[in-house]
Amino acid sequence: MRVAVIGMGLIGGSVLRALAAAGHKVVGFDNDPATRGTARTASAEAPPSARWQIAPSVSAAVADAELCIVAVPLPALEIVLDELTGRGFGGLITDVTSVKVPVLELAEQYLGGSQRLAGFVGGHPMAGRETSGFTAADPRLFDGCAWVLGLEPGRTMLGDWLDLADLVTGLGARAVPATAADHDRAVAAISHVPHLVASAVAEQAAAPLAAALGAGSFRDGTRVAATRSELVAAMCGGNADAVRPVLDAVIDSLTAARDALDARNPIAALRPWLAPGHDVRSAWPPVAGEPLPMRPTVNALLDLGRAGGWITGVSKDRTTVTAVRPD
Amino acid sequence: MRVAVIGMGLIGGSVLRALAAAGHKVVGFDNDPATRGTARTASAEAPPSARWQIAPSVSAAVADAELCIVAVPLPALEIVLDELTGRGFGGLITDVTSVKVPVLELAEQYLGGSQRLAGFVGGHPMAGRETSGFTAADPRLFDGCAWVLGLEPGRTMLGDWLDLADLVTGLGARAVPATAADHDRAVAAISHVPHLVASAVAEQAAAPLAAALGAGSFRDGTRVAATRSELVAAMCGGNADAVRPVLDAVIDSLTAARDALDARNPIAALRPWLAPGHDVRSAWPPVAGEPLPMRPTVNALLDLGRAGGWITGVSKDRTTVTAVRPD
Repeated sequence: MRVAVIGMGLIGGSVLRALAAAGHKVVGFDNDPATRGTARTASAEAPPSARWQIAPSVSAAVADAELCIVAVPLPALEIVLDELTGRGFGGLITDVTSVKVPVLELAEQYLGGSQRLAGFVGGHPMAGRETSGFTAADPRLFDGCAWVLGLEPGRTMLGDWLDLADLVTGLGARAVPATAADHDRAVAAISHVPHLVASAVAEQAAAPLAAALGAGSFRDGTRVAATRSELVAAMCGGNADAVRPVLDAVIDSLTAARDALDARNPIAALRPWLAPGHDVRSAWPPVAGEPLPMRPTVNALLDLGRAGGWITGVSKDRTTVTAVRPD
Repeated sequence: MRVAVIGMGLIGGSVLRALAAAGHKVVGFDNDPATRGTARTASAEAPPSARWQIAPSVSAAVADAELCIVAVPLPALEIVLDELTGRGFGGLITDVTSVKVPVLELAEQYLGGSQRLAGFVGGHPMAGRETSGFTAADPRLFDGCAWVLGLEPGRTMLGDWLDLADLVTGLGARAVPATAADHDRAVAAISHVPHLVASAVAEQAAAPLAAALGAGSFRDGTRVAATRSELVAAMCGGNADAVRPVLDAVIDSLTAARDALDARNPIAALRPWLAPGHDVRSAWPPVAGEPLPMRPTVNALLDLGRAGGWITGVSKDRTTVTAVRPD
């Protein structure tokens, strides 16, 4: 496939490298000239079969592309979409941001028009790292990672979805079908709220004695509090509608724990409070069941995603996918 | 030193092995006959210079001991203290539980009498693991770990404290001087509340789609939610007085984050909210400064502990300790 990658930070850079290594014809662009330079040098150092091109502009990058992967932060996404539609780009567009409802709304604004949203599938590879920038890019970043591909009943073209599922499973990722709304609720629970909570907990260890005593539970429980605040603010604030109810549920749950501490026997009162969280975490990560062939309809794919399943491959003729469900 | 270790779970078993490997004469006891059998077999398999004895009772274990390390859960501690004082044990006693004010109160009840609390120093090695039991015991468990040793102005005998500091630094641990109250507040912040929060967050990922998307931030942020609920309940409920204000502070902080999400510009409102947690976590773990000799007075030691420092060694004549402060 001929692919343009716009934005070459950690995710964009890794996509660029992974696609090139998988034999795709890849052209990259980044607004930052230094990043373009670094990426150009890195290509020259890659094996000849796994090199990529660097373009001087978005227009030049997508000139010959069938697919454009927009790997820029949410605030910059609109600018790139505007540029792509302005020059009449006719290929498939996807993104990699951590929030999908606002991106879907942007896509409808720029690509909608008709009932169908042809040429657009939102994407989100669940592959964060504390490091950032092209120098941290890793072609193996997506190996075994969940890569959500947005599927809106009656809007997304199934063929577009399957093309992208074929591409990302080729990089080793698990293609997870989900609506933008379902995605945003899920990532609020497993990523955005955990980032907020990590910050609130880290704040409590400001005293030097506490810092000196911090061990495993503090290290792991607060690890993501070291993420750059601008990124966390953009991620959580950009998904505010989905983050609010999850954060409310966490505050309610902690308030119940607080009440348990006030009970005549706090130890006995805490035990049942701890059970639900213990049970969910002990059953995680889910164990993958047997891969099975499935006929890919929009409803079958969304059912699979809601059941915690994913796709590991798409047949050449697009009539069958390999589906995995948790055991 | 001749040491008795009562209770041979993960911590007691590791202390037993570490002390034996360091050349001390060690006798172990556990209420569970199977654990005694396992520990006896393990001794026979250890190098001849690093073996230990297994006693059939607490009395037999401490018969010849200068120091008794009580490594049993908090509820069993009173029974052992009762047995030790009942048989007139005259040596030094320490414990390894994660809460120190309730233990200090027990010790005062059983060993107090006079103004001074001779023969008792509370202890807490900050070396948890998800595994438990003697089979998980590891003589290197305390290498580089903080081992709090309780120091109560006007109560603890400085000589007792230095004897224990000498012993635990000999196992590679950092001996941290702290009052029971300061300890309990610090561990509420860096361990107990993080356990409660992990459970509240894990609970939010009950939906299969959320579980399928869980990646690094969920994995690390909720890791300790898989700890056995009885242990977490005993730990947090047993330290309820110190846990309450920290949990209140976390709930207040998350409520402020919730308000930020309701702001006209949630991204801008979240940024300053995230700063304190980010700053604390980015500065953690503290970097150790140059080890320096220090004359060990109770006040100098407590100042060192409050400043986030620790002891790495004690001179033979007990007049000098090697103190490390964070840089």
